[in-house]
Amino acid sequence: MKLPSAYTLKDIAAIINCEFEGNANHIITGLNEIHMVEAGDIVFVDHPKYYDKALQSKATTILIDKKVACPAGKALLISKDPFRDYNKLVLHFQPISYSVKQISETATVGKTSILMPGVYLGNNVTIGENCVIHSNVVIYDNCHIGNNVIIHANTVIGADAFYYKKRVNYFDKMISCGRVIIEDDVEIGALCTIDKGVSGDTKIGAGTKIDNHVQIAHDTVIGKMCLIAAHVAVAGVVVIEDGVTLWGQAGVRSDVRIGKGAVLLAQSGLGEDIPEGKTYFGSPASEARGKMKEIAALKMLPDLIKKLTEE
Amino acid sequence: MKLPSAYTLKDIAAIINCEFEGNANHIITGLNEIHMVEAGDIVFVDHPKYYDKALQSKATTILIDKKVACPAGKALLISKDPFRDYNKLVLHFQPISYSVKQISETATVGKTSILMPGVYLGNNVTIGENCVIHSNVVIYDNCHIGNNVIIHANTVIGADAFYYKKRVNYFDKMISCGRVIIEDDVEIGALCTIDKGVSGDTKIGAGTKIDNHVQIAHDTVIGKMCLIAAHVAVAGVVVIEDGVTLWGQAGVRSDVRIGKGAVLLAQSGLGEDIPEGKTYFGSPASEARGKMKEIAALKMLPDLIKKLTEE
Amino acid sequence: MKLPSAYTLKDIAAIINCEFEGNANHIITGLNEIHMVEAGDIVFVDHPKYYDKALQSKATTILIDKKVACPAGKALLISKDPFRDYNKLVLHFQPISYSVKQISETATVGKTSILMPGVYLGNNVTIGENCVIHSNVVIYDNCHIGNNVIIHANTVIGADAFYYKKRVNYFDKMISCGRVIIEDDVEIGALCTIDKGVSGDTKIGAGTKIDNHVQIAHDTVIGKMCLIAAHVAVAGVVVIEDGVTLWGQAGVRSDVRIGKGAVLLAQSGLGEDIPEGKTYFGSPASEARGKMKEIAALKMLPDLIKKLTEE
Repeated sequence: MKLPSAYTLKDIAAIINCEFEGNANHIITGLNEIHMVEAGDIVFVDHPKYYDKALQSKATTILIDKKVACPAGKALLISKDPFRDYNKLVLHFQPISYSVKQISETATVGKTSILMPGVYLGNNVTIGENCVIHSNVVIYDNCHIGNNVIIHANTVIGADAFYYKKRVNYFDKMISCGRVIIEDDVEIGALCTIDKGVSGDTKIGAGTKIDNHVQIAHDTVIGKMCLIAAHVAVAGVVVIEDGVTLWGQAGVRSDVRIGKGAVLLAQSGLGEDIPEGKTYFGSPASEARGKMKEIAALKMLPDLIKKLTEE
Repeated sequence: MKLPSAYTLKDIAAIINCEFEGNANHIITGLNEIHMVEAGDIVFVDHPKYYDKALQSKATTILIDKKVACPAGKALLISKDPFRDYNKLVLHFQPISYSVKQISETATVGKTSILMPGVYLGNNVTIGENCVIHSNVVIYDNCHIGNNVIIHANTVIGADAFYYKKRVNYFDKMISCGRVIIEDDVEIGALCTIDKGVSGDTKIGAGTKIDNHVQIAHDTVIGKMCLIAAHVAVAGVVVIEDGVTLWGQAGVRSDVRIGKGAVLLAQSGLGEDIPEGKTYFGSPASEARGKMKEIAALKMLPDLIKKLTEE
Repeated sequence: MKLPSAYTLKDIAAIINCEFEGNANHIITGLNEIHMVEAGDIVFVDHPKYYDKALQSKATTILIDKKVACPAGKALLISKDPFRDYNKLVLHFQPISYSVKQISETATVGKTSILMPGVYLGNNVTIGENCVIHSNVVIYDNCHIGNNVIIHANTVIGADAFYYKKRVNYFDKMISCGRVIIEDDVEIGALCTIDKGVSGDTKIGAGTKIDNHVQIAHDTVIGKMCLIAAHVAVAGVVVIEDGVTLWGQAGVRSDVRIGKGAVLLAQSGLGEDIPEGKTYFGSPASEARGKMKEIAALKMLPDLIKKLTEE
């Protein structure tokens, strides 16, 4: 999330009432989750295991639960509870306000686009030209839909990320302040979910086609001209390059990358990156040709064991 | 289902026009499917294979298709078609009446709760304080939602159980008369289904968080502070204890129990109980460490077979 | 799709402005995708690999991208782009017109049927007697629902087929002009999708029961009294005969046939036909008894490898 304007370290420390290390006039321009950080951003970290990653990330301000050596040119915000204070900053800069109108007054829709009955558009939603948004589609606040986009009935765009911190007696919810960006010429099936980014954007690239019952989680970025079949579930912070095909009921774990033109076969469960152009299969998924050899070998195994036992 | 008041054996026999065995004034207070029975309940049984289970269950009245020896302190209702007569009793005590208003007049909503546009609330639905029910959520009759609950768009709470008896030429539907109970601090994603109990309650325990596209079937009871990822399908009459995690696209067969703090990895298909604290994987699922060894061994199998064949 | 009346070869060639081979008065009565063709139909083909299949199909007119020898009694339409011209004909005979009313004026509903709030019915939709259509169900144009049908909340009937031709820079969408036919006594769970046929009908046979989150793709034909559990995904042009059971999260590839009374176990991925009465399991699925032996053998493999390595 970009802040509405530049703030100083001192300003931000005052909002969350915490100490800081570094130049009081150090500039802060954004707020992001670790996978999405850029220069100017605050990132938060609350476990020693991830201190180095946060301190060495592109973020120039680190909201941290311990006074550590501050990297050159960066600043620290020292908080007893960085997760809580990160959420506090999110709500400070982007307060939640539910629009209970069917179409928010701040939503805009291209003149040639068709909204079918029962469609809900939240605050600041934009829809381009020549779109068809079918009945009962729900688009949460701050989502942006390009031109020539078709979204089938009862699909939900921009629901919150499934992201919680475990406390002793409850799960503490990360407040999602990101968006969903749907580029031009995308078609999305019925009953799909595309969650908003935690702090960045979930993106569906131009010309990509998505079948029914597909789940795309927070901050996942899908390239151009991909094909995603029914019941596919893609976890958060995944990168899918252009021209990728995901077949039916496949699943993709968070934080993996699928190279250009790669294919994930039906019902596969992907837990690692796929290089460009490769085809993967299985749960857990591996390169398909090797996997097919395993499957053929497994068919021979009962007889093999019988033979070895009889010897 | 509890009956509105206590009835005698004779009263109930009159409603379904059948013979009975036992004290005409024997007291009946409820009606339940075999998995959910308590003292005071009627249970039905129509296959000799299950006679003993029904007769020895906690139910004190057995609706049965044959005159058998009546256990001490219990009573029998002798019916040509116990399934039909069970449904007849359900409809007698809880007639189906569809509320065609967007929000039924008998539904109640806590003052601080927000209902977004397109939400449907059936008869006798209750929603606590400080909830957000997103657009187009549908809550069927007799479901109860606690405080601080968030339900994302287009989710359906309280649809009928998928439960039929096969007749020669058709499937005979079991009439669901149970409820859904969602406890405090639960969050449910978009496009989820939580079916009502057949005769008891489907329950989601306090603080549990559920991602998008999740299916929880009838009479399943989920504990506190569980995490259920996207596209998980849990069948009916499952017990999930506190602190359990089910990863994406996992499936759970009916009538199994998952122990406290256990984990079911992504895409696993569970057909047996998981003991407390264990991690399971695979389809069919077994203890994860053993499963990982099988997967590693399978990768070696093609070469092993080649070697053995060449010898 | 049947044409509104009989047309001549010359008439059709004029609509798409192309050359033809054969009798100018050769009669054309329909337009169908290759899997659904009958005598009187036009079929299109644009790849030499499929020329023979199209020329020898039941279709009596072939829309093709090359002048080839015309089979006796048939005719050819010679087009630079048969896919584009097929779509052009579909739109000529069945122009898309979105009804933005909640219930189209051309929709008809049996007197004893109940429509709950938020239901959308498109153009020419028909619903029989004694149905219950739950809240927020969306039924696209030209779908037909029989008598005694229950459709649970937020289900979508008749969305477009997921069917595209890959062009150099975009996916070209096949315009779906087919229908969905739901026969009598069917029950469909919440949050299901049943897509319309590309040019023919997607059918759900009488008495079939479908659980929640099920996907049935274009032109798939399901027989009578089938049971389909939650999260099942059936691809396009599949034939499922009477009395078949598909358990939870199973997937079926396009263009396969499942024989009468067959069973596909949970989470299986079917890529081939199942003969009548057989039970299949696994991903990829094979006959269940053999598959269970493989699973048992795999459990022994780690120890077997250890033993062979130690020898």
